Amino acid sequence: MKTYDVIVIGGGPAGLSAAIYTSRANYKTLLIDKGGCLNYKIGRVYNYLGFPEGIDGKELIQLGCKHIRLLGSETVNEEVLSVKMQDDLYVVKTNRSSYAAKGLIIAMGVEYKKIDINNLEKFEGKGISYCVTCDGFFFRGKKVFVIGSKNYAAMEALELTDYTSDITIYTNGLKPEIDEGLLEKLKAKNIELKTQRIISFTGGKKLEGIILEDGSTVKCDGVFIAIGSSSAADIALKMGIILEGGYIKVDSKQRTNLPRVYAAGDCTGGVRQIATAVGQGATAAVNLIAELKGLASADYY
Amino acid sequence: MKTYDVIVIGGGPAGLSAAIYTSRANYKTLLIDKGGCLNYKIGRVYNYLGFPEGIDGKELIQLGCKHIRLLGSETVNEEVLSVKMQDDLYVVKTNRSSYAAKGLIIAMGVEYKKIDINNLEKFEGKGISYCVTCDGFFFRGKKVFVIGSKNYAAMEALELTDYTSDITIYTNGLKPEIDEGLLEKLKAKNIELKTQRIISFTGGKKLEGIILEDGSTVKCDGVFIAIGSSSAADIALKMGIILEGGYIKVDSKQRTNLPRVYAAGDCTGGVRQIATAVGQGATAAVNLIAELKGLASADYY
Repeated sequence: MKTYDVIVIGGGPAGLSAAIYTSRANYKTLLIDKGGCLNYKIGRVYNYLGFPEGIDGKELIQLGCKHIRLLGSETVNEEVLSVKMQDDLYVVKTNRSSYAAKGLIIAMGVEYKKIDINNLEKFEGKGISYCVTCDGFFFRGKKVFVIGSKNYAAMEALELTDYTSDITIYTNGLKPEIDEGLLEKLKAKNIELKTQRIISFTGGKKLEGIILEDGSTVKCDGVFIAIGSSSAADIALKMGIILEGGYIKVDSKQRTNLPRVYAAGDCTGGVRQIATAVGQGATAAVNLIAELKGLASADYY
Repeated sequence: MKTYDVIVIGGGPAGLSAAIYTSRANYKTLLIDKGGCLNYKIGRVYNYLGFPEGIDGKELIQLGCKHIRLLGSETVNEEVLSVKMQDDLYVVKTNRSSYAAKGLIIAMGVEYKKIDINNLEKFEGKGISYCVTCDGFFFRGKKVFVIGSKNYAAMEALELTDYTSDITIYTNGLKPEIDEGLLEKLKAKNIELKTQRIISFTGGKKLEGIILEDGSTVKCDGVFIAIGSSSAADIALKMGIILEGGYIKVDSKQRTNLPRVYAAGDCTGGVRQIATAVGQGATAAVNLIAELKGLASADYY
């Protein structure tokens, strides 16, 4: 497994700014982004210092990619599915590979995941969960559904096999977008993929099943929501990073509650601007470098 | 007196970023900077997103000036000497004029003021003070020296005339750089300007005088240090803004302890990078706008 000093997850303005700082400081840096740091949906930016007539968001990102590569950062076009600590290193598992690093900067932005299924809130924590790492244990030997259509849902389902063998993925009407390798693993574990839309959750005090679009009820003991791609909140939840209002909680140094793990940009909430993301990325990097050096404060910088 | 929605003090990256946001949001903005926003000593910048090959600091500042003028900000090339609250407005007094505004963003950077006079620390708070507004009262009718060579020292001396008439300015070996108008006012108040270098402070439990380079001792009851130009700390001290380690104390919204007064960039401490200054300027502006609108939170933005 390839090992780095710093892994930056996310190639938007916050992640790029962080990687500029870590690679300039000679810390071996890997930036991981689904779109290979070129897939960001930013319109024209009119309020960022340096570009009086505005700059196309995509162009700004491209300049950032060029910048970090010039400075020696590596970049890969992969989706981060989980992060675990192992022998004092953080091991980042993607849809294709695994990478290890001493320090981590999470800059994954925010993704609005709309779940339009009746009774969702009623059964949250009463059969409906958002994190296999956190709650898989409660469903040992039970019949469990995973709702989602992408790699992230497949990963959650595969992680559930540690606890039970009766697992089905429901894409809830969406076309599955799961890598071939993961599909093979699902097959090997007898995890079925169903595409019917789910209308409602049903049960008494606890979740007892789901109601499909054809009106039929399918019984189950638990449901794991894993829609869309893995988000900062998904990853944070698994790692035990404290969230606040859905955002990663950081201090003024962009530090999370975990050692050598920082977060920056939209995934930490705040005013969510390019300018603030760039500033937070720099702050996270400078303070992570100080922590890796064993310095109490980054004021030396 | 010309009135604005927002006055930004300081035309470095933080101030410019703040003015971009306030003027884009249609808040009538004045940016005040000694150098007219073109006098910043920033070398080539290699770690700011958008410029993979680096950008000359001066060029970045020029782009920012162009940007805020395009958006309708006014700029003046003046030195801020004091800020006072008056009828719910902040009145900013410069070496040439006065301006009023509902909200204020302080982004004056940091200036290292080296004072190399023996026994300075020994007599701080025991005759040596840094703020006439704060401590002038203790020197009513006493013999007082102001140490400094610029407009700021002249302003402090003139403010002291509310308390005493026995005032001398010592430039401590520096050539005086004081505007003609202020020099006339000093003359009218019989405030003498002396250029001898000061070697040491002297006294017992309290300050009793200064020792000059020729070895002679000149008796006095108090000394006000007002060297260099007025700094963020100087202005903050006068306004009653809380400092921490010489820096303006702000919360995560860049808010100071005063209503509608925010601060950003190097004068607030932290890692002091272009990227962070730009982010903090944006954060300050967005949150000031929210406060001016009477909104509790800026998360709407």
